[in-house]
Amino acid sequence: MDTPGLPAKIDPDALTTVLDGRWAGLRRAVRAQMAAEDFKDPVDLDVEAHRAQVLEWLRLLARTDRPGLGFDPAYGGGGDVGGSVMSFEMLGFGDLSLMVKAGVQWGLFGGAVQLLGTERHHERYLRKIKDLELLGCFAMTEHGHGSDVQHLRTTATYDPATREFVVHTPDRGAMKEYIGNAARDGELAVVFAQLITGGESRGVHAFLVPIRGEDASGVEIEDCGRKAGLNGVDNGRLTFTQVRVPREALLNRFGDVAEDGTYTSPIESDGRRFFTMLGTLIRGRVSVAGSAGSATKRALALAVRYGEQRRQFARPDGEEVVILDYRAHQRKLLPALATSYALHFAQEALVSKLNDIAEDAPEEEQRELESRAAGIKAVSTWHATATIQAAREACGGSGYLSENLLAGLKADTDVFTTFEGDNTVLLQLVAKGLLTSYKDHFEDLSPLATARFVAEQFVEAVIERTSARKVVERLTEADDGDVLYSREWHLKLFEDREEHVLGGVAQRLRKAASDPFGVFNDAQDHVLRAGRVHVDRVVLEAFIDAIERCADGEARELLERVCDLYALANIEADRGWFLEHGRLTSGRSKAVTAAVNALCADLRPHARTLVDAFAIPEQYLAAPMLRD
Amino acid sequence: MDTPGLPAKIDPDALTTVLDGRWAGLRRAVRAQMAAEDFKDPVDLDVEAHRAQVLEWLRLLARTDRPGLGFDPAYGGGGDVGGSVMSFEMLGFGDLSLMVKAGVQWGLFGGAVQLLGTERHHERYLRKIKDLELLGCFAMTEHGHGSDVQHLRTTATYDPATREFVVHTPDRGAMKEYIGNAARDGELAVVFAQLITGGESRGVHAFLVPIRGEDASGVEIEDCGRKAGLNGVDNGRLTFTQVRVPREALLNRFGDVAEDGTYTSPIESDGRRFFTMLGTLIRGRVSVAGSAGSATKRALALAVRYGEQRRQFARPDGEEVVILDYRAHQRKLLPALATSYALHFAQEALVSKLNDIAEDAPEEEQRELESRAAGIKAVSTWHATATIQAAREACGGSGYLSENLLAGLKADTDVFTTFEGDNTVLLQLVAKGLLTSYKDHFEDLSPLATARFVAEQFVEAVIERTSARKVVERLTEADDGDVLYSREWHLKLFEDREEHVLGGVAQRLRKAASDPFGVFNDAQDHVLRAGRVHVDRVVLEAFIDAIERCADGEARELLERVCDLYALANIEADRGWFLEHGRLTSGRSKAVTAAVNALCADLRPHARTLVDAFAIPEQYLAAPMLRD
Repeated sequence: MDTPGLPAKIDPDALTTVLDGRWAGLRRAVRAQMAAEDFKDPVDLDVEAHRAQVLEWLRLLARTDRPGLGFDPAYGGGGDVGGSVMSFEMLGFGDLSLMVKAGVQWGLFGGAVQLLGTERHHERYLRKIKDLELLGCFAMTEHGHGSDVQHLRTTATYDPATREFVVHTPDRGAMKEYIGNAARDGELAVVFAQLITGGESRGVHAFLVPIRGEDASGVEIEDCGRKAGLNGVDNGRLTFTQVRVPREALLNRFGDVAEDGTYTSPIESDGRRFFTMLGTLIRGRVSVAGSAGSATKRALALAVRYGEQRRQFARPDGEEVVILDYRAHQRKLLPALATSYALHFAQEALVSKLNDIAEDAPEEEQRELESRAAGIKAVSTWHATATIQAAREACGGSGYLSENLLAGLKADTDVFTTFEGDNTVLLQLVAKGLLTSYKDHFEDLSPLATARFVAEQFVEAVIERTSARKVVERLTEADDGDVLYSREWHLKLFEDREEHVLGGVAQRLRKAASDPFGVFNDAQDHVLRAGRVHVDRVVLEAFIDAIERCADGEARELLERVCDLYALANIEADRGWFLEHGRLTSGRSKAVTAAVNALCADLRPHARTLVDAFAIPEQYLAAPMLRD
Repeated sequence: MDTPGLPAKIDPDALTTVLDGRWAGLRRAVRAQMAAEDFKDPVDLDVEAHRAQVLEWLRLLARTDRPGLGFDPAYGGGGDVGGSVMSFEMLGFGDLSLMVKAGVQWGLFGGAVQLLGTERHHERYLRKIKDLELLGCFAMTEHGHGSDVQHLRTTATYDPATREFVVHTPDRGAMKEYIGNAARDGELAVVFAQLITGGESRGVHAFLVPIRGEDASGVEIEDCGRKAGLNGVDNGRLTFTQVRVPREALLNRFGDVAEDGTYTSPIESDGRRFFTMLGTLIRGRVSVAGSAGSATKRALALAVRYGEQRRQFARPDGEEVVILDYRAHQRKLLPALATSYALHFAQEALVSKLNDIAEDAPEEEQRELESRAAGIKAVSTWHATATIQAAREACGGSGYLSENLLAGLKADTDVFTTFEGDNTVLLQLVAKGLLTSYKDHFEDLSPLATARFVAEQFVEAVIERTSARKVVERLTEADDGDVLYSREWHLKLFEDREEHVLGGVAQRLRKAASDPFGVFNDAQDHVLRAGRVHVDRVVLEAFIDAIERCADGEARELLERVCDLYALANIEADRGWFLEHGRLTSGRSKAVTAAVNALCADLRPHARTLVDAFAIPEQYLAAPMLRD
């Protein structure tokens, strides 16, 4: 199996230029600050010392203009949403507790004030939030409701007599749970609660509630204590006992209560209003995907460097073999590295879309963006979990020592798959969007509602759409020549798989009107698969687009091979499906495996270049195992 | 897809009887002590406090007769090797630092004195080791050599003038690394070093070297510091600078040096002698596999209980769905649970074999046992890593809090895949045994030696053997009836896959004589696969044997379904291979997936019974997330 040859040595800087892309200047600025300040994961701090350290670092970040990038320029902000998200992504190279704490303060808390609040809130709070004069929380998740946030049970009941809202936790299940910044530092929280006025519930809204200080009577705070990782973030639980806040504490962009208790909103449906509010908050999800990517790159950089240096077992000539020369070792790291490249470009495209979308963009476009954010977050964070695990194992006992950094990366990123949206739920959301062509309003995240909705209204259309597109020709050995390295063939397989899986889901769900839970549940694995293979296709397209943008010929050649490896390793991993559905013959399926092996061997000499191109500040790769 | 019906409710005790098997009494005794003493994972101790706690617990264990089970009855031991290993397995339900520390003290350190030493060492040390009057280390791994232990570089040079060995670390690469008990508690170490006498090197031998106290001058100890997990174990690094120990410090069962420096050994070849010595030490590897199994069961028990209690998203009637009712959730946990059952029975069979093997058993039988231990250790520990990860994710944010125990289980077990033999290297060892029918002496673990050896001597025989056995009939849709639940069909697929993969490896390696590294490396993925699918077949057979032994009719029915799920989920995961090789038609492949789904649904009502049957002491399942 021959692959096109590659130049012996390729300049990583040329790759860095492509990787850094649109926000290259900002990326460089963050790297420079990270290199100057020592934001490096502490290896042996206890929880309290780590929390203190992270807060201290946060103050260093607050001296730059990046925390305000996502805020309205009228209040000292930068009006650069993409840059804001990108700066969280870059922080992912360092201690992830700092990334999360920064994300809570400026992304979630500040973001909610910016996006759900109105002028009165912006005026009063945005500068203070940006400058860290006011630390805050984003209190959405409850003990009993994490994924199904529409059914949160904290209440905020309007009392026209005093013109106040009474925020209340009816029972332990409604207690706010895992709230970042709550256990130690937060002073004010954006609390999501069912708004009740005039005896009527109007769905979930956000309220500003002081949780520390003299105005916080009735607020009880518990510390979540030690976690698997991210121990520099002070997660806590909040319980509200008839806590009174002024009427103006309601973040009232999407719904308001007049002094007399009259409710008004530009959006009539409670559900639609809530999901519109949620939709404005996707920056957090996008940031998690980005920083998961950064942590994964760091793990790969550590493991590749170790793999190039560690030797074990002698060749016939007596020289010990560098472990990255073993095929099994290449298999552990290089397809994952190719996937990290692919996801990097998909992330960059997502951030660009998020940045560029017009405030008055059609709802369909908004929903499509949310869906893409959900899908890329799920795929990126699962990739992080699997890859950091593989990197740890690839470094053996050294990888298990905290000083060598992989243990912390693993522990810190582990929650990424289930926070800011559980990945399984997020992939369902993606599938729902595909089935409905984003025409509905995502009014309900519940799988049953999806099934019912789909069954009732859109299945026929999807079936028509997916069968109208002619089923891709079944491929046989007789196909012309060697398609293995043909990008067109990769794309065709990815697209065809997506269409076919989606059509199958639609067929399965059409009976859902009669037994929504049973029918949905029987199809759930197909629903998740539909979401997954859609994201895979989007990611491949983003990689192809990025290669188009690469001006350097040699770097471009290398990226083509990396893209081959991404596509073929994906096809190989899923060859059961391709074989079952007649898209691969058994001969070609074996050829795909052989091609993945050949690409691993071809890319092996460039592995170091590929990780160096991430331009991770050296201090974050200063593991003792790499010193000797 | 219909599966045979199951009784509505099955008594977990009947299952426990089958699971507890041959060492049921001992298992009950360990459970009773674990329930009485509080050996529970500390959630928030710092490293030093955790180490102190574990040592205290170790002293409680030393009061029982179990630490001596594996030692010679002449010195207070129990002469019950199986029971010894089983008691480490059971400790795996609790804090894994205790299991590892006990394993280092009694299994590795004590085991080496028992198995590599002679009467003078037994007489002097075994009682003290058993009673914890003497704490010790097993100092094999070096900074530069972990997997390739035959090439350790510490030297022990005999000085006939003083009748002493001089133990020496020539450079940092030869420093002993990750040594348990070294950083804090160990007094004496079994040190593996190249024995040199009369200017001639005789290969690796073991020496008793004091590392603390007045006799320890020249020994330098470093602390490995914090690790991802297992922080109750004090791992350290040992450097020896011309350390003198008496001639009698040599553990001389397999090789001795007379006062004048003359070397004698019952085994002529240095390599064969070393691997015979190593072979006696497989108890540690077997214990790791067993305790990985216990930790995995505990994670599954936690996740199943949580999955039965946690609700999210409402059904049409308004009732919220218990998350274990979702197919995707069942898919995350139930095939893993079935695999845990399968591995449990394979482990029990392995321990029985280890226990029963005669001291003078033919070398082929010894090698086969070592190979099986290697394979089951690799498969069990990878299963632990994947399953504990899935269990954490299945518990969402709760699973991330240390108080809910999964974070600790994940962190503690993470190193199991790479210690006591790196899994990748172990699977190669399994494949080597299969290729040579255990006829060679495992003289060299090196992959190149395997390839050369195999190529030169045995490939033709394997090719003959695997093709003499007629290739299994290709299965077509026309096969009689529904084979999906036929155990015979499962076995046939597993056996055929093993034969086919092994034959393929032999074909690939036959050219190795010309270019050992290139040929081996090109075949490495097939070599690993050969080891893996062999273990899968052994595990399936052990499950089938265990079902045979089950006297209770209902429990047996349930075990049959669990075995179906193990077999079919394994086939499903590998359906790419079965399809490529014409062993599954695409229709049957899809039917396998449907059957896995159906089995998940059938077993869902019994999930709690299946985890309760592990009879894990309740205190180890006392996670706050299960209280509300």
